[in-house]
Amino acid sequence: MEHNIYMRKAIELAIENVKVGGGPFGAVIVKNGLVIAEAANGVVRDNDPTAHAEVSAIREACKSLGTFDLSGCVIYTSCEPCPMCLGAIYWAHIDTVYYGSKAADANNIGFDDSFIYHEIAKPHPERRIKFIELLPNEAINAFKAWDNLDNKNTY
Amino acid sequence: MEHNIYMRKAIELAIENVKVGGGPFGAVIVKNGLVIAEAANGVVRDNDPTAHAEVSAIREACKSLGTFDLSGCVIYTSCEPCPMCLGAIYWAHIDTVYYGSKAADANNIGFDDSFIYHEIAKPHPERRIKFIELLPNEAINAFKAWDNLDNKNTY
Repeated sequence: MEHNIYMRKAIELAIENVKVGGGPFGAVIVKNGLVIAEAANGVVRDNDPTAHAEVSAIREACKSLGTFDLSGCVIYTSCEPCPMCLGAIYWAHIDTVYYGSKAADANNIGFDDSFIYHEIAKPHPERRIKFIELLPNEAINAFKAWDNLDNKNTY
Repeated sequence: MEHNIYMRKAIELAIENVKVGGGPFGAVIVKNGLVIAEAANGVVRDNDPTAHAEVSAIREACKSLGTFDLSGCVIYTSCEPCPMCLGAIYWAHIDTVYYGSKAADANNIGFDDSFIYHEIAKPHPERRIKFIELLPNEAINAFKAWDNLDNKNTY
């Protein structure tokens, strides 16, 4: 029942966003029954290709809670997350995703993310983006510097 | 030759970031021979799990150029991008990625993104995150609202 309330809020954010010229996507993040963040797609409004509803909601939730770790939070998104948002959800340690529409529904109205899933699964030379290794023997020095620290936490 | 200069800048950003408590990752975005954006990993500093060097550089480049479309830009990153950053690179329409270290090198010092590649490739029920469909018949209304617009551009 409460799940429906949060999902309806995410859907409402998506519909309201369309009215102001944004993409039809909304997301809500909830922790212990409290809404921590709400966001709609802001790619065009903010000139930010990473401002998908889920990424923006994660950033807002982290700001609100003062942490980069959203363990124990649940995300309600009006549409199944794209690979970028899915990556962000994993890095944020969110462990449950409620979604409304499917990625295929988004594809039907012109928002296609399936190509990214296909691209990510391919080896570098077969991708449409060029991947070129450069100065690996110098780049490794950054990892050595980190590895030499006394106190280090990965995240 | 110029490629080396930009990559060395990305590596320097990564090494400098370690000195101030950040993760060992840096990125530079270049367009027509001009540096448009520079960023280092800010996950801990900014309490933002999406603040990987590549995502932050993309956001900065878009702000600098006043667009959400980085076509014609090249990204130099001190380490091969994770799936989140790769998704962001696709959405930003960057078409060339120069990378220094490999994802496997990052894994060796505790920054593992390989699990995300594996997770993304799995069907929902096999993922470690729970994916639950909810109210799809209501969520589709956001897409109908968008599809009914006279002028619409996907991105």
